[in-house]
Amino acid sequence: MIKKVENKKQSEEYDFKCSKRVYISNNSSSIKVPMREVSLSSTQKPDGSQEKNEPVRLYDTSGPWGDCDFHGDHAVGLPKLRNDWISQREDTEVIAGRSVKPSDNGYLSDLHDRKTIERTNELPDFDRSKLSILKAIKGSPVTQLQYARQGIITPEMEFVAIRENMRLQVRNGDLSTDPKEVANSLFHQHEGNSYGASIPREITPEFVRDEVAKGRAIIPANINHPELEPMIIGRNFLVKINANIGNSAVASSIEEEVEKMRWATKWGADTLMDLSTGKNIHRTREWIIRNCPVPVGTVPIYQALEKVNGKPEDLNWEVFRDTLIEQAEQGVDYFTIHAGVLLRYVPLTSNRMTGIVSRGGSIMAKWCLSHHKENFLYEKWDEICEIMSAYDVSFSIGDGLRPGSIADANDEAQFAELKTQGELTTRAWEFGVQVMNEGPGHVPMHMIKENMEKQIEWCHEAPFYTLGPLTTDIAPGYDHLTSGIGAAMIGWYGCAMLCYVTPKEHLGLPDREDVREGVIAYKIAAHAADLAKGHPAAQFRDNALSKARFEFRWEDQFNLSLDPPKAREFHDQTLPNESAKTAHFCSMCGPHFCSMKISDEVREFAKSKGLESQTALQKGMQEKAEEFVSKGGEIYSS
Amino acid sequence: MIKKVENKKQSEEYDFKCSKRVYISNNSSSIKVPMREVSLSSTQKPDGSQEKNEPVRLYDTSGPWGDCDFHGDHAVGLPKLRNDWISQREDTEVIAGRSVKPSDNGYLSDLHDRKTIERTNELPDFDRSKLSILKAIKGSPVTQLQYARQGIITPEMEFVAIRENMRLQVRNGDLSTDPKEVANSLFHQHEGNSYGASIPREITPEFVRDEVAKGRAIIPANINHPELEPMIIGRNFLVKINANIGNSAVASSIEEEVEKMRWATKWGADTLMDLSTGKNIHRTREWIIRNCPVPVGTVPIYQALEKVNGKPEDLNWEVFRDTLIEQAEQGVDYFTIHAGVLLRYVPLTSNRMTGIVSRGGSIMAKWCLSHHKENFLYEKWDEICEIMSAYDVSFSIGDGLRPGSIADANDEAQFAELKTQGELTTRAWEFGVQVMNEGPGHVPMHMIKENMEKQIEWCHEAPFYTLGPLTTDIAPGYDHLTSGIGAAMIGWYGCAMLCYVTPKEHLGLPDREDVREGVIAYKIAAHAADLAKGHPAAQFRDNALSKARFEFRWEDQFNLSLDPPKAREFHDQTLPNESAKTAHFCSMCGPHFCSMKISDEVREFAKSKGLESQTALQKGMQEKAEEFVSKGGEIYSS
Repeated sequence: MIKKVENKKQSEEYDFKCSKRVYISNNSSSIKVPMREVSLSSTQKPDGSQEKNEPVRLYDTSGPWGDCDFHGDHAVGLPKLRNDWISQREDTEVIAGRSVKPSDNGYLSDLHDRKTIERTNELPDFDRSKLSILKAIKGSPVTQLQYARQGIITPEMEFVAIRENMRLQVRNGDLSTDPKEVANSLFHQHEGNSYGASIPREITPEFVRDEVAKGRAIIPANINHPELEPMIIGRNFLVKINANIGNSAVASSIEEEVEKMRWATKWGADTLMDLSTGKNIHRTREWIIRNCPVPVGTVPIYQALEKVNGKPEDLNWEVFRDTLIEQAEQGVDYFTIHAGVLLRYVPLTSNRMTGIVSRGGSIMAKWCLSHHKENFLYEKWDEICEIMSAYDVSFSIGDGLRPGSIADANDEAQFAELKTQGELTTRAWEFGVQVMNEGPGHVPMHMIKENMEKQIEWCHEAPFYTLGPLTTDIAPGYDHLTSGIGAAMIGWYGCAMLCYVTPKEHLGLPDREDVREGVIAYKIAAHAADLAKGHPAAQFRDNALSKARFEFRWEDQFNLSLDPPKAREFHDQTLPNESAKTAHFCSMCGPHFCSMKISDEVREFAKSKGLESQTALQKGMQEKAEEFVSKGGEIYSS
Repeated sequence: MIKKVENKKQSEEYDFKCSKRVYISNNSSSIKVPMREVSLSSTQKPDGSQEKNEPVRLYDTSGPWGDCDFHGDHAVGLPKLRNDWISQREDTEVIAGRSVKPSDNGYLSDLHDRKTIERTNELPDFDRSKLSILKAIKGSPVTQLQYARQGIITPEMEFVAIRENMRLQVRNGDLSTDPKEVANSLFHQHEGNSYGASIPREITPEFVRDEVAKGRAIIPANINHPELEPMIIGRNFLVKINANIGNSAVASSIEEEVEKMRWATKWGADTLMDLSTGKNIHRTREWIIRNCPVPVGTVPIYQALEKVNGKPEDLNWEVFRDTLIEQAEQGVDYFTIHAGVLLRYVPLTSNRMTGIVSRGGSIMAKWCLSHHKENFLYEKWDEICEIMSAYDVSFSIGDGLRPGSIADANDEAQFAELKTQGELTTRAWEFGVQVMNEGPGHVPMHMIKENMEKQIEWCHEAPFYTLGPLTTDIAPGYDHLTSGIGAAMIGWYGCAMLCYVTPKEHLGLPDREDVREGVIAYKIAAHAADLAKGHPAAQFRDNALSKARFEFRWEDQFNLSLDPPKAREFHDQTLPNESAKTAHFCSMCGPHFCSMKISDEVREFAKSKGLESQTALQKGMQEKAEEFVSKGGEIYSS
């Protein structure tokens, strides 16, 4: 019944040319971290000799699906990478767990469920017969935060340290090469300006532990999601991106969503949020989590709302609590919870241009007003924390009152909620739960920094996770771009994770190509931010690609890019012949007139005349030399 | 022989729905400035009543081609809008002008030219029989800078003042409505941070004159391009964008280039650069200028190089001077001249990652090294200024040593040239010639501001005109995006014009869709910058669109966007039915679950209960009131 995807995985669509999966181990070989290694061709020197270019290793989010030696099957799911790590801690127990109810999938009865499934030809339940459900032994939080505070370096932390470490990005034979040397060997590395963040040149397991212990970074990793390859979200690490998937009432199917997950992680999504509404939410999520190598986040109120037939006023603590446990047992790694939408903040939005645009925010606002009561998520916060600490589900505290237009940016409603997010952060930390905070939205460029600064101050350095922000409202159809600008900037200022926006934002549901466009736009924003922060594991890729570009190594240029097939396709639209990919010119200028070619000649010319340095130039010049020097002196002193 | 394009113009492809051309006149009706007026539907109030939404007027670069009452013909060219303005100044004379030579189009003889044209089926010469060539009467510069210094407000300045003036953007019946009121009537307008620029709330002709006189802004407007609708480039005005067109040796044709010109200005290109190389350069340019409503720029060294068979070392002052006059007589509005690439700077590039990537820069570098002489453009600068002042051709002083990779950003070579650009600026001003300066290139985010600050200081506040900058090298295929980030930021910091980058950058020649993508990406960057600067004529459009979005006026949302057909197309991919465009829900959430819908209900609910303000809420609350107030006090004081 379920389509095998093995062949698809092996196809061009899923493979990057000249790339292979490599694994970097720790000393005890108990941990192996996947990377994508891109092999490069040699440089053709003008004297006919060849110079070898070392392969480049790239951070890889695609999981086992990106390893051509892995022959997986969606129906089986991914290997349980973390099972041993978790069991060796001896602080969890296998529980019976909550029984799946028809209402988890939006049906009135089992019969209703089965009949609908038969009729609509959708996916069956994932076979969980070999899976167990874990929970913390009572009274012992099993969170990475708790371990970090106790001084324990977990395998998850060690995994992350290897993954973030720049010295492993470029293979120089000896893996212990000094990172500074590696950077220098690839030309000039710029120093960044990281606005108070301090990124070490080498990410050690102890540094990871310390950042997690301080609450400055999180490793979202539910004990019931052992398939996950650990990653870290914090401003002293590489900027991460999230992609949203999820079936909606209007379009999409379960199978499409699983495929979308693999597609998004292939291009570089660091986490996924399953924002499903409508029928089969539980079933869809099970398929996604069992096959997903990256953390999965949800907004549990969406499913809770389905269980009360879409009426916000009928929501209550019991149904919400039951949904939290349901999802925690499945393995969701982080929950967006809109507990900061307090009753007294709601009227602050009534004179806004665009009111409340967050779904979760508007649901809770309606609940608050309907009952004339305080937001029950806020009231039950401690109980929520207790649940989350028992599975290591991280908080992504929602920003239900984020601005939906430039006019509403940085207003009283938004900042009132942000302060409450800070209060909730402190309370969650008391329970040992990992926390990040969600942020806007629509914000003009000059008002972005204030968001970051206030979040750091009010939320005590917990990681910030923003949607964009979109820097103008006037370009529906291009909001990956309006928001890519804001995302790059806030990433530079210290935002730890950027939630992608696709070109379909405000207009429709993203299809496969939209997901790709959205992910790539956000990889650009995140990488631009890493460069600006001066992250030591960022510029080596720009350097390797630019060197390939300058040396007309076209294939290397494609293979090192964020989207090799697109780069290749665009090149071929103008110059389709294979020979053009080895030609020492490009289509912009044609064979007789290429600045790169001329520039290369200039370099050779300068060298042949001994003009490669200022001193040599002055020596080599005859008539004009004195005049230049005197003029030069004047200009430089002005 | 030449295809009529009249029908095409009238087609969907060229027309924006619900838009009409309007003209705003000055008091004496001697000047009429075109704008695109978008009519909006009414707001449906919950009580069943309707509220009228005033039409919105948008800055329009499409010229007469955007007026459906204009039935033009490429073979005739556009009406000569500025003829009377120029002749009334009585400082020009009609000259015989230089005869067109076969080498202007890259041919050895007239026979060679004619035969090739017949064979390749390309366009004939534009019929200039009714056109004359103007030049300044000897000794009197005819530049806008010269007039401005003399205290003269030219019709060009008046045109620009009306065009930039926000109070005309939204029609409120009375055109003299106070701009502040107009802004306020459309909800909150944010104050910007314009980094020392000072944009008045009303752009007056006197303000325009003063900015031009100070050299802080230019109005590129060759007296031989009377078809041009004046526009201004300066950091106290709306940020402008340039699109590049031009046949290349590998692809394209003359006719395509003329079409590309209309296409680029339809989407919002404020100026065009014709970067043609190869054959038929003169002929192509004539067709473009005669049909082009925006300023046209060129890099004359490209054509000069063709005249010496592509050998940089054979370039000389005579062939360059002849090319300048040829192009000035045709009506080119600004020249990029790489006079800052001095001999002693060339070796500074030899250890770069990507050497010299500017075509003009590499040509001059090769010339300098071949001859062991100083750049002849630098040596002949005064003579170049004299030529340009006689036609009012503006300088765009080239940045031939701009960085072509992140590794090379802000290096010694780049900044050495920038200082020389400043020296050349001062010398050009002495001749009354208008000047802007070109800038990079590839620059990581944290190094962008330094470029703007140094340019303002070293080039004495002459307008800056940058290519991007690209904030990372790793995304060929998406460089409209990598550079859109940098462009938005430098626009905010004070850059006056942004040269677009298309998705094909580094890979191939842009086609029609690439030009559209590039222009829209840069309209986004420019507009985001205008918002951040707090330009009074920016946020009204975001406000109007966001209001339409919140009120589910789908058609208005499309029509107010930068690319209405794309917004409509994306919407229709998910919800193709016409009824969906009047539905009070959108495809992201489906009919039963829409945050905007809920938010609207919240607003109505709050209103019905008298909860629209904080005070009213407290009054309306019963049991919980005291608890909230006490908690609120605590939170706000923390």
